[in-house]
Amino acid sequence: MATLDRSAAEALDAADPIAFLRDRFALPDDLVYLDGNSLGARPVSAERRLAAAVRDEWGTGLIRSWNDAGWYTEPDRIAAGLAPLLGADADEVVVADSTSVNLFKLLVAGARLRPGRSAIVACEADFPTDLYIARAAAELLGLELRTVPGPDAVPAALDAGVAVLALCHVDFRSGAIADAAGLTAAAHAAGVLALWDLSHSTGALDVDLHGWGADLAVGCGYKYLNGGPGAPAYAVAARKHHAGLRTPLPGWFSHADPFAFDPGYTPAPGARRLACGTPPVLSLLGLAEGVASLQGATPEQLAAKARGLTALFVDLVDRYCQEVEIASPRDARRRGGQVALRHPWAYPLVQALAARGVIGDFRSPDLARFGFAPAYIRYVDVVAAVEILRAVLDGDDLSRPEFAVRQAVT
Amino acid sequence: MATLDRSAAEALDAADPIAFLRDRFALPDDLVYLDGNSLGARPVSAERRLAAAVRDEWGTGLIRSWNDAGWYTEPDRIAAGLAPLLGADADEVVVADSTSVNLFKLLVAGARLRPGRSAIVACEADFPTDLYIARAAAELLGLELRTVPGPDAVPAALDAGVAVLALCHVDFRSGAIADAAGLTAAAHAAGVLALWDLSHSTGALDVDLHGWGADLAVGCGYKYLNGGPGAPAYAVAARKHHAGLRTPLPGWFSHADPFAFDPGYTPAPGARRLACGTPPVLSLLGLAEGVASLQGATPEQLAAKARGLTALFVDLVDRYCQEVEIASPRDARRRGGQVALRHPWAYPLVQALAARGVIGDFRSPDLARFGFAPAYIRYVDVVAAVEILRAVLDGDDLSRPEFAVRQAVT
Repeated sequence: MATLDRSAAEALDAADPIAFLRDRFALPDDLVYLDGNSLGARPVSAERRLAAAVRDEWGTGLIRSWNDAGWYTEPDRIAAGLAPLLGADADEVVVADSTSVNLFKLLVAGARLRPGRSAIVACEADFPTDLYIARAAAELLGLELRTVPGPDAVPAALDAGVAVLALCHVDFRSGAIADAAGLTAAAHAAGVLALWDLSHSTGALDVDLHGWGADLAVGCGYKYLNGGPGAPAYAVAARKHHAGLRTPLPGWFSHADPFAFDPGYTPAPGARRLACGTPPVLSLLGLAEGVASLQGATPEQLAAKARGLTALFVDLVDRYCQEVEIASPRDARRRGGQVALRHPWAYPLVQALAARGVIGDFRSPDLARFGFAPAYIRYVDVVAAVEILRAVLDGDDLSRPEFAVRQAVT
Repeated sequence: MATLDRSAAEALDAADPIAFLRDRFALPDDLVYLDGNSLGARPVSAERRLAAAVRDEWGTGLIRSWNDAGWYTEPDRIAAGLAPLLGADADEVVVADSTSVNLFKLLVAGARLRPGRSAIVACEADFPTDLYIARAAAELLGLELRTVPGPDAVPAALDAGVAVLALCHVDFRSGAIADAAGLTAAAHAAGVLALWDLSHSTGALDVDLHGWGADLAVGCGYKYLNGGPGAPAYAVAARKHHAGLRTPLPGWFSHADPFAFDPGYTPAPGARRLACGTPPVLSLLGLAEGVASLQGATPEQLAAKARGLTALFVDLVDRYCQEVEIASPRDARRRGGQVALRHPWAYPLVQALAARGVIGDFRSPDLARFGFAPAYIRYVDVVAAVEILRAVLDGDDLSRPEFAVRQAVT
C-alpha cells in the first residue's frame, strides 16, 4: 500500500491550490494531527503576537493598550477577516463569549423577532450543549422546545407556531452535513428564523450564509479557525434583522458607547450589539492569528480540500482496514471535514493511535473520530494515518490496560 | 513637600507587611500606575506561563494539553486560590465568562430560588453593565426592576416581593463601600437574596462573603486580581444554595460530565454548575498567575494597605492640591482602593498626568480616578503621584488641544 498511495498523495499535495497555508502553522514533526475539529493547530504567528501582548502591551502599555495596541477594535478586525469565510458581511459578525452563550443570545433575540410563536425546534443529535441551551432559553421564554431526531425530520416540525429553528450544520459525531439552504428555505416558508451552529464548518466548509438566506448563526473559534484553546466564539445576524435585534445579555461592550457609562442602554450598531462583557484579550489575539492564517483561501477551496482529504481517507480505510466501519456519509458532498470510524474498541483504538503519533478523538460509545483540517493537513498525512491505523489493527492488543485509562477530556 | 513626605512614605513602605508582593509584578520604571482598578499589572510569571502555553501546550501538546497540561482543571485551581480572598470555600467559586454573563446567571438562578416574588432591586449608581443586565434578566423573568439611587436607599426598597438584591460593593466612580454585612442582613430580614458585585473589591479589600452571610457574588478577574485584559470573571454561590441552583446558561462545562456528551443535563457539583462554555484558556492562565501573585496576603492586609495608600493620597491632595475636590469618602473605612478627584477639566487633567507618567483614568463628566492596588503600589508612589499632580496643576495648560483628544477607551 504505502509506496503506491504515497506517490499519488504527493501528486495531490503538489496540485493543492491552498497548500501554501500549511507553513503558517506550527505542527510537531512526529505527529499526524487529525483533531483540528476539536482544537485547531497553532498559527506560527501566535507565538510572537501573544508574547508581545503579554510582555509589552499588558506589561508596559497596561491600560493604554486598549487604545494604543488596538485591543478595543480587535473584535472588529477579526470579524472583518471572518466574514468572507461565513459568506457574510463584517457588520453582521461579532466575536465574543463562547458558542453556548452566543447561541443563548440568538435564540432569545430570534424568538423576540417572532412574537406570538410558541416553539423552538432543535435536533436531538446536535452537540449536547446546544440542546441544553435551547432548553434553557425555551424555558425562560415560556416556549416549547420541539426536538427532532435529525435534520431530515426538521421540515415536518416546522409550522406557524415555531419562532426559531436551531441546527448544527455538521453532525459532531458523524460529520454529516445538513442541507442548510434547503432547511433555511423550509424554515422561511413557515415564517421561522433559521439559526445555524457552524462550529464544525467555518474554516473547513463552503459556508455561505448569504447564499443560504440564513438569519442567524453562531460558531466556535478554536476548531477550524485555529484560535487557540477556548478561543472566543462568534455570532452572526443578517443585516435585515439588526434593527429589531434585542440581546438578552446587554453587557457594556454591546452598548453604542461603553465608555460613556450611560445608565440607559443604547445598542451598538450591527452585530456588535451581540457582544456582552469585556472580551478575554489574550484569547482574542489567538483567534486573530487563527483567522489571519486562513486568509487567501476561499470557503470553496477549503471545502474542496476537506472533501479530497476525507475521500482519500475513506477510500484507504475501505481498502486496507476492513475491520472498522465508516460511520460518516460516503457521499463527500454530505460530509464535513471529519470522518468517524465505528469500532467496538474505539476508545483503546484512539489511545493506541495516539501512542503511535496519530491524534484523533473518541466519541461515545464506539466512534473514533478524525478531523482533516484543510488548512494544514496534507494528502500524505492521510496515507500516513491509514498506514499507522493498519499497524495498530495488526500489532496492538487493544485490551491492554494502558489503552483503557479514561482521561477527563476525550 | 517632596523630601519630607517621601521619607515618611519610605518608612511606611519599610513597615508594610505585604511589601513582598510587589516583586511579583512587572511594572515600567518610568510609570506611577494608578489604574489597577481598571487593568491590573502583569504578574512577572505570566510571561513564562503564557509563552509555554502558546508554544508547548497549544503548539506541541495540542488537544492532549486539556489533560496533560491541566487546562481542564485550571478553573478549579484558580477557584481554590481565589476563595480565601473572597471569604468563601473553593467549591462555592467558579471561574468563567465575563462579570456581565455571570451576573445574568446569578440574577436568574437567584430569582428561581425565590419563586413567587416579583422584583429585583438594583442601584442606579452601579456600574452601568450591571443595570443593563439586571433590566434584561428582569424582563426575561417577568419581574420588576426596582432601582434605588444608592445603597442607603436599599433597605426601604426591600420587602417580601423582592427576590434578589444586586449591588456593587464599591461605587466604581467614588470608591464608596456599601455596608455589605448590614445590607445582606437587611435583605435576609425580608427573605431577599443578596448578590454582590465584587469587581472593585476582591484583591484590594477585606471581602468576607461568609462573614457577611452573602448568598451570591460575581466579580472581575482583570482589576485587582491582575488576570490580564478581559480575564475571565468569577461567580460565587453559598453552599446552602447549591442544591436548588439552576443556571439559565447550562453550557457543557457546567455539566457533571461534559465528555459523556449526554443529551440530558445533569449539573456539576457545587458552583461549577455556574460554568457555561469552553473557557478561554490563554486568558484563563493569565488569571491563574494573577491570583497566584496575591497568595500570602490576607484580605485584611490588602484592605489595610489600600486604606493606608488612599489615606496618604487624600491627605497630600488636601494639603498640596486644593484646586481639586476629593470626591471619595473621607472616612477610610468607607472607601475602596481608589480615590476620585473632581475637577472641571478632569479629562485633560488625566491626559496631562499620563504625559508625565502618572496613569489614572477619567470617569464622565468630571472625575479623575486613581486606583491604589495594594499588591504593588507603594507609599512612595503616592508621594510621586501627588508631586506630579502638583506639577501638572502648576505647569500644564489643560486647554491644550492634545489633552482633549478623545480616546475610545477612557
